[in-house]
Amino acid sequence: MKNKLVVIKIGGNIIDDDAALASFLTDFSQLKQDKILIHGGGKIATRLNDKLGIKTIMNEGRRITSSDNLDTTTMVYAGLINKKIVGKLQGYSCNALGLSGSDANCILATKRPSTPIDFGWVGDVVSINNTTINLFLENNITPVFCALSHDGNGQLLNTNADTVAAEIAVAMSDAYDVELIYCFEKKGVLMDVLDEDSLIQTINSQDYACLKQKKIINEGMLPKMENCFYALNNHVNKVIIGNPKVISDQGYLCTTLIL
Amino acid sequence: MKNKLVVIKIGGNIIDDDAALASFLTDFSQLKQDKILIHGGGKIATRLNDKLGIKTIMNEGRRITSSDNLDTTTMVYAGLINKKIVGKLQGYSCNALGLSGSDANCILATKRPSTPIDFGWVGDVVSINNTTINLFLENNITPVFCALSHDGNGQLLNTNADTVAAEIAVAMSDAYDVELIYCFEKKGVLMDVLDEDSLIQTINSQDYACLKQKKIINEGMLPKMENCFYALNNHVNKVIIGNPKVISDQGYLCTTLIL
Repeated sequence: MKNKLVVIKIGGNIIDDDAALASFLTDFSQLKQDKILIHGGGKIATRLNDKLGIKTIMNEGRRITSSDNLDTTTMVYAGLINKKIVGKLQGYSCNALGLSGSDANCILATKRPSTPIDFGWVGDVVSINNTTINLFLENNITPVFCALSHDGNGQLLNTNADTVAAEIAVAMSDAYDVELIYCFEKKGVLMDVLDEDSLIQTINSQDYACLKQKKIINEGMLPKMENCFYALNNHVNKVIIGNPKVISDQGYLCTTLIL
Repeated sequence: MKNKLVVIKIGGNIIDDDAALASFLTDFSQLKQDKILIHGGGKIATRLNDKLGIKTIMNEGRRITSSDNLDTTTMVYAGLINKKIVGKLQGYSCNALGLSGSDANCILATKRPSTPIDFGWVGDVVSINNTTINLFLENNITPVFCALSHDGNGQLLNTNADTVAAEIAVAMSDAYDVELIYCFEKKGVLMDVLDEDSLIQTINSQDYACLKQKKIINEGMLPKMENCFYALNNHVNKVIIGNPKVISDQGYLCTTLIL
């Protein structure tokens, strides 16, 4: 029987709220099974851009990554946020190791073609180095990934954090029984984005097609859902979207994706 | 017989010069023995401070690290510079892993007392996690350290890069035959700082006392020399100060420290 591994992604609204982040990291550090954390941080990168007079250009919720933007994201994701999280986890007796995709060649990617849209220094994942990630886990080291990859030829690339989480979950499912949890500030996927009581507790791929057609699921939630079904279709055992409270309270309501 | 390990520290003037950095990293990647890199980056942090309107205050060449300054150094050291170096080394087929002192609890430090001078978030090294650094080396992973430590209670601390290099060299000398090399833009310690031909090829502790008294060695070179003799007095086999060319050309002139 495979060991359990939980792969958790936290979004910018949790990172940006000191109390919410501290609460999440406390709960995360207390998880007994092997665990991997992936974090975003786009909002904080955008704020640094504003201070530095660097333009932030988005296309369908995805960042167009100029060279200046790549420097900002590298500073904010791999530096400020990653090390803040790692430092705090160490304080909670969780032996965290902060990683970008270039570190120990963990996430190899290829620069996205510049047509039809030129996203700049954005990478699509080619492979995850599960051998090295496994080495860390076997030595009681908890990987904490920011959403940067590399092309293997010296170039860092910006990669969507939801996608990084799904790709890592899929790659680790060879050796582990993997649960993938996307944490954000809401309870899960909502019928009405303004009403937390409208939580959809289970979504299968047919429901998803229907919700997409009715535009109940749209914008930023679409790529997240695509990542969820990609993971389920590639040997990840369980996929959840929900509030960080789900990791400490198994009865806390959330959205569970099923095939 | 112990395996050989080379611990190399590069300073800001090399990091700041793209051609010099590429040349150094090419040579570094080709070293056959186990190796560890430590980098500074204060000048780049100061430039970011200037752009963000954050004051940089130095005391005897050491940075007073306010909370704002700690954020800047975390962004620049652990983010921008560390990941740029790691990405480039991966491009040269060197399996680099970027680390701050909080990552995998590699460098535990204690905040420096606020008297007689309050340096802010500056840490003095308590211990180096040589077990984990050894795990990386044994798995063909090359650690690349920036000069940040942590206090084990969630607080990152700024630590002088020369000191980090010396402490790592000393800690690894239990298991390895360690050579410590401080690389900077000059050939080594010079009798006349403006004359590269005035290189002092060997300095023992008596020479050092004499050179210090005559103020031939002063300012920033003093703490570097203290680190050199600290390393020699604590089982590091060989300590060199010189130009990056020393790592590829064994005949290249430099300063060798001896007891």
